[in-house]
Amino acid sequence: MKKYQQLAQQIKDQIELGVWLPGDRLPSLREQVTNSGMSFMTVGHAYQVLESQGVIVARPQSGYYVAPRQVARTTPAPAKVMSDETVDINTYIFDVLQASCDASVVPFGSAFPDPRLFPLQQLNRSLATVGRTVAAMSVIENLPPGNEALRHAIARRYAQQGMQVSPDEIVITAGALEALNLSLQAVTGPGDWVIVENPCFYGALQALERLRLKAVSVATDPQHGIDMAALKQALNDYPVKACWLMTNSQNPLGVTLTPEKKRQLVSLLQEHNVTLIEDDVYSELYFGRERPLPARAYDERGITLHCSSFSKCLVAGFRIGWVAAGKHARRIQQLQLMSTLSTSTPMQLALVDYLATKRYDTHLRRLRRVLAERKQHAWQALHAVMPAEVKIHHSESGYFLWLELPEGMDASVLSERAIAHKISIAPGKMFTTGNAWANYFRLNASWLWGEREQQAVVTLSRLINEMKET
Amino acid sequence: MKKYQQLAQQIKDQIELGVWLPGDRLPSLREQVTNSGMSFMTVGHAYQVLESQGVIVARPQSGYYVAPRQVARTTPAPAKVMSDETVDINTYIFDVLQASCDASVVPFGSAFPDPRLFPLQQLNRSLATVGRTVAAMSVIENLPPGNEALRHAIARRYAQQGMQVSPDEIVITAGALEALNLSLQAVTGPGDWVIVENPCFYGALQALERLRLKAVSVATDPQHGIDMAALKQALNDYPVKACWLMTNSQNPLGVTLTPEKKRQLVSLLQEHNVTLIEDDVYSELYFGRERPLPARAYDERGITLHCSSFSKCLVAGFRIGWVAAGKHARRIQQLQLMSTLSTSTPMQLALVDYLATKRYDTHLRRLRRVLAERKQHAWQALHAVMPAEVKIHHSESGYFLWLELPEGMDASVLSERAIAHKISIAPGKMFTTGNAWANYFRLNASWLWGEREQQAVVTLSRLINEMKET
Repeated sequence: MKKYQQLAQQIKDQIELGVWLPGDRLPSLREQVTNSGMSFMTVGHAYQVLESQGVIVARPQSGYYVAPRQVARTTPAPAKVMSDETVDINTYIFDVLQASCDASVVPFGSAFPDPRLFPLQQLNRSLATVGRTVAAMSVIENLPPGNEALRHAIARRYAQQGMQVSPDEIVITAGALEALNLSLQAVTGPGDWVIVENPCFYGALQALERLRLKAVSVATDPQHGIDMAALKQALNDYPVKACWLMTNSQNPLGVTLTPEKKRQLVSLLQEHNVTLIEDDVYSELYFGRERPLPARAYDERGITLHCSSFSKCLVAGFRIGWVAAGKHARRIQQLQLMSTLSTSTPMQLALVDYLATKRYDTHLRRLRRVLAERKQHAWQALHAVMPAEVKIHHSESGYFLWLELPEGMDASVLSERAIAHKISIAPGKMFTTGNAWANYFRLNASWLWGEREQQAVVTLSRLINEMKET
Repeated sequence: MKKYQQLAQQIKDQIELGVWLPGDRLPSLREQVTNSGMSFMTVGHAYQVLESQGVIVARPQSGYYVAPRQVARTTPAPAKVMSDETVDINTYIFDVLQASCDASVVPFGSAFPDPRLFPLQQLNRSLATVGRTVAAMSVIENLPPGNEALRHAIARRYAQQGMQVSPDEIVITAGALEALNLSLQAVTGPGDWVIVENPCFYGALQALERLRLKAVSVATDPQHGIDMAALKQALNDYPVKACWLMTNSQNPLGVTLTPEKKRQLVSLLQEHNVTLIEDDVYSELYFGRERPLPARAYDERGITLHCSSFSKCLVAGFRIGWVAAGKHARRIQQLQLMSTLSTSTPMQLALVDYLATKRYDTHLRRLRRVLAERKQHAWQALHAVMPAEVKIHHSESGYFLWLELPEGMDASVLSERAIAHKISIAPGKMFTTGNAWANYFRLNASWLWGEREQQAVVTLSRLINEMKET
């Protein structure tokens, strides 16, 4: 093959791969000469050939463009399990999450609240402000444990609740998920036993699998939360190293433990010398009069690593969370330094700037009010339309509803059928290692209720009715 | 203890912990009442007590403030190894890196180039632009594999070099470090053997330790790079799963492999069915006429995961890198989804916006020129001042110099003494598992050479002379 043919083929391959899309301007002849090291003659020849084949079009005074295609570019097929991979819970969760990323899907399965509830203008002002400083471009000052002013601001929010957390034990992370993963890694080694709730946040199950830990699932219910007798049993029966729990607005159930139960939990874990990894990302989203305390508030012996973030109550896209890690803070910094190095500097600085405006609490009050209203609205709409056999569990916090289908019905089948109608839900299977919650699903009720949402609920109801008949 | 005494004690504890610093305004009486649920009377009493003890001061019309201290707040002591931890390479690296974060230290040990060389104004403009959209606050559209437009822009830069990389195999990560860690995790399990260079980027050693992998170190030298005979031997002797290498401007040596050697490397690894994890973060910083290709360009069988980032050539603080992962792309997305979820949305969008301005190549040309000049300048300054026994290895790329002390001299001792004089260096010990490079250190030459830098080199020289005498 001659040089010009090689270049022409290379460009064709790139178009095939999607590097250049129909309508894209290709590098100019001059640029191509520089890039390829070939002569003007060769490059010109290659472009002529491509033009004659209808692959590219020349526009005078403008350059060469990829020709439009007859057939529109197909959107990728819904992700399938690849043949060389085991079908595991991670692949399942991955597929469900990927499905809800499509903007055309009604995101009832999403884990994140409607981003339109976040204070866009103020955050943007903060972003623009911090971008003006050379500090925003540097990573050095914000290496683990992270920006000092941000750690201070977080410590002060703990202090508002009467909790004593030093800025020095706080490590800023890429959302609560990194905080939880680093915490787990800091206090366990492969093969160790860890207690999780059943059902629980799927991130816990994934972290355990990734770190090759063994899970002890402890029964948890929508009314009362974790079963203390079962927890006691588990602690007696297994050499447990850590316990990963949500004490406030548990995901997916929404249940918040009573102060008394939190106290019992901490003292039980202290007795067994087990570390508590507390995932507390929803605690700002209470509907009552008072913000519930985390279990950490009842822990006087420092067995709790308290993880939280701004992702559910201020901004998800920034990916900023933290862990108040007590004596494990240094180990967690080390682990972070060797896995992601640190979180983005402008994101940390923008949050510092935003928090300094003191608008955060005002925003949170509004957010709680709107989420409570929307959840109530969604509950009513579901109640009016859903088949009578479907139970809707409603909790006094957060933005999730937990729906119970008739026994024997599989919510993951409903999920598959719903996705075909461009509706996502989060089936119970995502939140458990066993089959206990197969007939449940989680529904994100943070969206403004409109025609689209109403229609989606009607469709879900129809699909459930169809499943009943078969 | 009475309620007001409890509150007073709590606030004192918070001041002790550093939650409130001298001069900070405390929550107002009204705020404190809301936070604590105590009465105005009780809170007022607590504040009075604190005021009478001199812990806080009241300023009329303004509020209560933490009293200034007599003794300035001590800065934290240099990190020491904690008693419950093993002294390992990670702790050592961590301590050295933490030391260079202090703004008062001359950062010869830093891994990052001078952030003042980055296009601050344009990046800020991009940041401000993307912040105006609600999309910047959302995480959904940018979940793994990451923003589509950014993946396209990266694929096009590969295409500029004549490489065929599809946007679909690119995963956006928190810097190259996350890309490398996820790549390693995707293709190995605990106990597997992995080849690294000796010396190599310390991040590789840390990743191996964190993932409980076994390292085979292969000799690498400043002139010719990795020793191919030794590599062959290693591949024959160990059941190696992966090979983590830098083929362009190797860290710390600065050596770039010849195209012929890259080709040999790829074919040798293909023969042994070993995955190549290629760390290519410095390849934009060549000083010659042409950008060197990575080994990935010679790989027709898809054994290479090519990792890179914008951190060394555009902006470090954003923490954006990527991996062109071929058939491993899906697995890497899964691993990311369960460890950090995704990278910051505004950071991804800001880079898309910046890259669309087409100023990147202009910036890179300037950056390369300035780095070459500064490195040359640093080399001359060192040459003029350093004891004659010190060899300075100079490479035609990047911003590191590799200094060789007389045999038997320990650069980590020099490092300790230099830190006492507020100068950081990166001793050879950081880059190796053995002792082979104990008398070497890496020096960051990206800084504008001024009085401070000159003085630091004089001090280093004096310290070396003192070490010679003992």
